[in-house]
Amino acid sequence: MSEATLVQAAIGDSEFDRDTAVTRRAPGVYDIDLSAGWTIINAVNGGYLLAVLGRVLADALPHGDPFTVSAHYLTASEPGPAVVRTDVVRTGRTLSTGQASLFQYDEEGREVERIRVLASYGDLDQLPDDVRTSAKPPAIPPLDQCFGPADAPAPVPGSSAITDRLMLKLDPSTLGWALGSPSGKGEMRAWFGLADGRDADPFSLLLAVDALPPTAFELGLSGWVPTVELTVHIRCRPAPGPLRISITTRNLAGGFLEEDAEVWDSADRLVAQSRQLARVRI
Amino acid sequence: MSEATLVQAAIGDSEFDRDTAVTRRAPGVYDIDLSAGWTIINAVNGGYLLAVLGRVLADALPHGDPFTVSAHYLTASEPGPAVVRTDVVRTGRTLSTGQASLFQYDEEGREVERIRVLASYGDLDQLPDDVRTSAKPPAIPPLDQCFGPADAPAPVPGSSAITDRLMLKLDPSTLGWALGSPSGKGEMRAWFGLADGRDADPFSLLLAVDALPPTAFELGLSGWVPTVELTVHIRCRPAPGPLRISITTRNLAGGFLEEDAEVWDSADRLVAQSRQLARVRI
Repeated sequence: MSEATLVQAAIGDSEFDRDTAVTRRAPGVYDIDLSAGWTIINAVNGGYLLAVLGRVLADALPHGDPFTVSAHYLTASEPGPAVVRTDVVRTGRTLSTGQASLFQYDEEGREVERIRVLASYGDLDQLPDDVRTSAKPPAIPPLDQCFGPADAPAPVPGSSAITDRLMLKLDPSTLGWALGSPSGKGEMRAWFGLADGRDADPFSLLLAVDALPPTAFELGLSGWVPTVELTVHIRCRPAPGPLRISITTRNLAGGFLEEDAEVWDSADRLVAQSRQLARVRI
Repeated sequence: MSEATLVQAAIGDSEFDRDTAVTRRAPGVYDIDLSAGWTIINAVNGGYLLAVLGRVLADALPHGDPFTVSAHYLTASEPGPAVVRTDVVRTGRTLSTGQASLFQYDEEGREVERIRVLASYGDLDQLPDDVRTSAKPPAIPPLDQCFGPADAPAPVPGSSAITDRLMLKLDPSTLGWALGSPSGKGEMRAWFGLADGRDADPFSLLLAVDALPPTAFELGLSGWVPTVELTVHIRCRPAPGPLRISITTRNLAGGFLEEDAEVWDSADRLVAQSRQLARVRI
């Protein structure tokens, strides 16, 4: 990470780009080797999987930018070979819709579906510049007053390989869980970037919306919070520089919770909104 | 409507149930005649379509309650015959995932896909009773102090056949648009029910999240606000009695907006949350 900060990686030539690159085996069929570098504990991060599928659909569809991506997580992915099969649902002038499923293999080599997405793509650069928003960027202290896994007094629960690839600095006021005193509020705020300095693009935003520790930690829950479904809207091409992300949970009920994420860029534009439904072990 | 208020229709034997009933033609293939009774202007309401697809998947999957449904709207549906084709993606012990596509026919009788959904189903009655929520029911005046289309001084823009089938009473403080003076705030609140008094169930919640006039009207925009994608989470089986619904838009940008809906039941439970991405004509 220290070395990475010396030389900033470029979009298209970074760890993230290499680890989400796919190979087209045949029309609508893509191969990828899921990297072990984006695991959290032993699970492949859901946002990384979303970015892989996002890149596949950008190749399969006539439009290159994800506008809205809905993902249903079926079984836990593992590092290693996977195949993605796509279906072009509809192509339009300004929007196209596609579907993609990622499969891995069981002991007998049979395909097991891990995640299926339905997504509509467009061209962010063709959107008008009008902005009428009542949303405000999250109130978060300056980057140098926030803390990452390396700053933790003890190893942060949930830390794993992915943390080496992210620049993730959490708002101290949402870090109680890491110090054994969760706030009880379902809020988490952080500065976010890629460790090698690669700037954000729509695909890294798909990673960003699922990259923070779960809000459940601040609600005093521990353990895995598996995503059932996650939908993300990409609203604007992000400006260079670090992102600010807030995630909030308002309703924990019946063993499920929603987690809403907002991603803001350095130009104070709301560039992505997401919501996921996740399971908790009470 | 006056007659309907005399005799309350029962779940399973109501206008809504009849108009969302499907016939299984073959395994995974269902026929339905889309009713003209749920149109808004000339378009079939997106929530009604969601309810139809929700009932289809409840038949196709081993679990009967929609937990999370993601719908991508492809082309505008019309009243009349349609066929729904389903795909069982995964069946699990507590959750099952399925996909459904609704098709209608062009002049040559070719199938044209209208809407595709990806959904995960479970059993709401099997969920634990724990509730830890910071969400509050919307502040909305009593039912008799709210107003519906029949109370409008002039025909409400957007009023159409569907309004005869709904008990929809809007918070006067979010009705400025109907009086020619929109508030400029992307908020709408209403009491919601079915005109024949049928109580809510998970399928009518799929209708409810897309039943209010668009927040865009209170933002001073007029005209159609077509849904690109809508995802709804059903969090709890609704208690009998009218529902309270709030919809909010925080970010109108680049000709798109998100519209978030919350649905609360008479027991003050947050029973459904939804978010849609919609297009606006600036």
